[in-house]
Amino acid sequence: MKIREVVITPVAFADPPLLNVMGVHEPYALRSILQLVCDDGVVGLGESYGDATFLDQARRIAAELPGEDVFNLPALRRIVDRVLGGEVFTDRHGLTGGFTSSKTLATVYGFFEVAMLDAQGHYLNRPVSDLLGGKARDEVDFSAYLFYKFGEHLDGRGDEWGDVRTAEALVGEARTMVDRYGFRSIKLKGGVFPPEQEIEAVQALADAFPGYPLRIDPNGGWTPATGIRVARELAGVLEYLEDPTPGIEGMAEVAAQAQMPLATNMCVVCLDHLEPALRARAIGVLLSDHHFWGGLRDTQALSMTCQAFGVGLSMHSNSHLGISLAAMVHVAAATPHLTYACDTHWPWKDTDVIEPGVLEFRGGAVRVPEGPGLGVRLDQDALARAHEDYIRCGQTKRDDTSYMKRFAGNDFEPNKARW
Amino acid sequence: MKIREVVITPVAFADPPLLNVMGVHEPYALRSILQLVCDDGVVGLGESYGDATFLDQARRIAAELPGEDVFNLPALRRIVDRVLGGEVFTDRHGLTGGFTSSKTLATVYGFFEVAMLDAQGHYLNRPVSDLLGGKARDEVDFSAYLFYKFGEHLDGRGDEWGDVRTAEALVGEARTMVDRYGFRSIKLKGGVFPPEQEIEAVQALADAFPGYPLRIDPNGGWTPATGIRVARELAGVLEYLEDPTPGIEGMAEVAAQAQMPLATNMCVVCLDHLEPALRARAIGVLLSDHHFWGGLRDTQALSMTCQAFGVGLSMHSNSHLGISLAAMVHVAAATPHLTYACDTHWPWKDTDVIEPGVLEFRGGAVRVPEGPGLGVRLDQDALARAHEDYIRCGQTKRDDTSYMKRFAGNDFEPNKARW
Repeated sequence: MKIREVVITPVAFADPPLLNVMGVHEPYALRSILQLVCDDGVVGLGESYGDATFLDQARRIAAELPGEDVFNLPALRRIVDRVLGGEVFTDRHGLTGGFTSSKTLATVYGFFEVAMLDAQGHYLNRPVSDLLGGKARDEVDFSAYLFYKFGEHLDGRGDEWGDVRTAEALVGEARTMVDRYGFRSIKLKGGVFPPEQEIEAVQALADAFPGYPLRIDPNGGWTPATGIRVARELAGVLEYLEDPTPGIEGMAEVAAQAQMPLATNMCVVCLDHLEPALRARAIGVLLSDHHFWGGLRDTQALSMTCQAFGVGLSMHSNSHLGISLAAMVHVAAATPHLTYACDTHWPWKDTDVIEPGVLEFRGGAVRVPEGPGLGVRLDQDALARAHEDYIRCGQTKRDDTSYMKRFAGNDFEPNKARW
Repeated sequence: MKIREVVITPVAFADPPLLNVMGVHEPYALRSILQLVCDDGVVGLGESYGDATFLDQARRIAAELPGEDVFNLPALRRIVDRVLGGEVFTDRHGLTGGFTSSKTLATVYGFFEVAMLDAQGHYLNRPVSDLLGGKARDEVDFSAYLFYKFGEHLDGRGDEWGDVRTAEALVGEARTMVDRYGFRSIKLKGGVFPPEQEIEAVQALADAFPGYPLRIDPNGGWTPATGIRVARELAGVLEYLEDPTPGIEGMAEVAAQAQMPLATNMCVVCLDHLEPALRARAIGVLLSDHHFWGGLRDTQALSMTCQAFGVGLSMHSNSHLGISLAAMVHVAAATPHLTYACDTHWPWKDTDVIEPGVLEFRGGAVRVPEGPGLGVRLDQDALARAHEDYIRCGQTKRDDTSYMKRFAGNDFEPNKARW
């Protein structure tokens, strides 16, 4: 059960020009695919960020892993601490609250932890959810993740979703999402247009989808005063309000006035943030993400802190492929306190590196894979193609802002709390 | 991997007349021994309280378990919640902070959870520590647990430790403990004599064992003012001060003035207590106990909350046998944040229900068993004898106070915060 070889493959997949407070999604989203090859042929899979900084750090850990037992997670933690201790990632894209030293370690650790759990599951012939204490539910709910978007990329490449920059177009996008995948809650990525326009859009969604839990996430694009105003105008409409404003202090200011809970994947993104945020009563829902919360076991443990403080738990998503989705589904299923529908970018891509058929959205939910480990298998041809796309696309980091400047003729600044 | 039969055996083992704030240990300590017999002969072991109330509740759960998969911990939780939801134990002995509804559920759940994890380990041929993420350490430190005590029980039965009611006798008791087991830290169960006398005893221990981390635990026997005074007089001497006074408010009052951290297994004993205690900055060390914190997985998850709030983690103990010790060792080893030496009553008994040889104290530490599951095996003859002792002794609950009244001619009241 020892690791023989560690293969990290950077991949790219086509991404539509989705808009957010930092700018617009580039033509390709980048990911790293991890294969932990063990001495008896078992392979554990992992998936995480694909930017050059992450790849470099992950590769330095990978070099240390051959010979380690996949059951020895404490050894992995010691290696990550020793090799990367004190290092802090440069903030990659500004949408998950920046990096501290502990978040850096947790991010790299989590990449390998998932693959080690997958390998453990193969050795034990049990699904990862069983290694996490068993499924509290057989399927995991996700929410439709709506984006404003341009109709095409700078190179003219379009997509089936077209130009979505009005409330009307957004309702159409939601309709397609809901019809196709059965989502029963809806989230809008905001922070793109002035708040009034986004409030109108949410109200249009509420009219078009009566009874659906709704959320809006401007990624900290508003001042606290604007956050309070939006919360007041959307009282009774929003299930939760996500990251209306940057920072724990500002969030606490909005939370004190808001009728609905505030959710975050920006002001609480590592262990260091929990105490100040909980003391300040800044948040009502924590959007966990195993990619930066130290893998599946730590994500699950986080739920006890949330439960103790009466904070709900849900799940954040960046653009991802099937290995990440499988990992999200296993940990969400094995975490009883996680009751809100999770985020996923899944519908925005048309390719993957795993064999199809296991992860299907029905009724807005994904059934927990029942095979051993994560329950998904790598499609080596698809992986090779996605790696070629990575080489060809030339992107090495996510930079929504520079790409937006090219759209906007340099006339764009991603100021947080600009409204 | 389904449960075929559930056998719960109440047992008793001889206990010396150890003194505490509630009174004195009765001639026998009671425990419940659990055997989850699975359809293919695998047996999962558990151990917990042995009083009649607990036995009754555990048996009601046991009746529901046949047919359940030992990997399905969420099903166990649902059964416990359904059968016992809303019930609250009567406080058994007053030394672990009373019972809430959630602590009641966690206590019964934990009894079965350990046995299910043991069975899982046997199926998977891995130690329980591996199911908890792997050992962060190969052995777990324990502290010598000193008690004031009477020389003999009311029936005249004595023990090798003799009468220990002076500082001098206590130092002798500590010397034997340290020589025999190699303990490298020392805890005194206080709240028995006036604080001045116990301060002197701690100072005598400090003189006799220079450099040893020392602790005193009066089980909430002092007022906050006395707690503050003791903290001042023992500044620089105590590693931590355990439960000087009852309740979160009083603890916070002492903590604000004390130089050393305050530890507790009384004011924070379930999820409901975490938020108020952490907000009040009432504690610096949490003494976990898988018997009432919902088993091994929840005990481990608790460490993240402690870590996030800068609170240390250690482990409480009641009188226990080897199955409980094995469980404590596995979870402590797999919980990196648990760095203080744990409590154990182990040296105070001279019998067990497990086959000897696996759990040995050397250098004050116990090596993590390496066999599958908990790594201990039941000695059926010893179990039968301990069950006969249970029948013969006639005790059905722990009641240190009534027993003390019989010693003291009724002249005893276990008032908390009496000094």
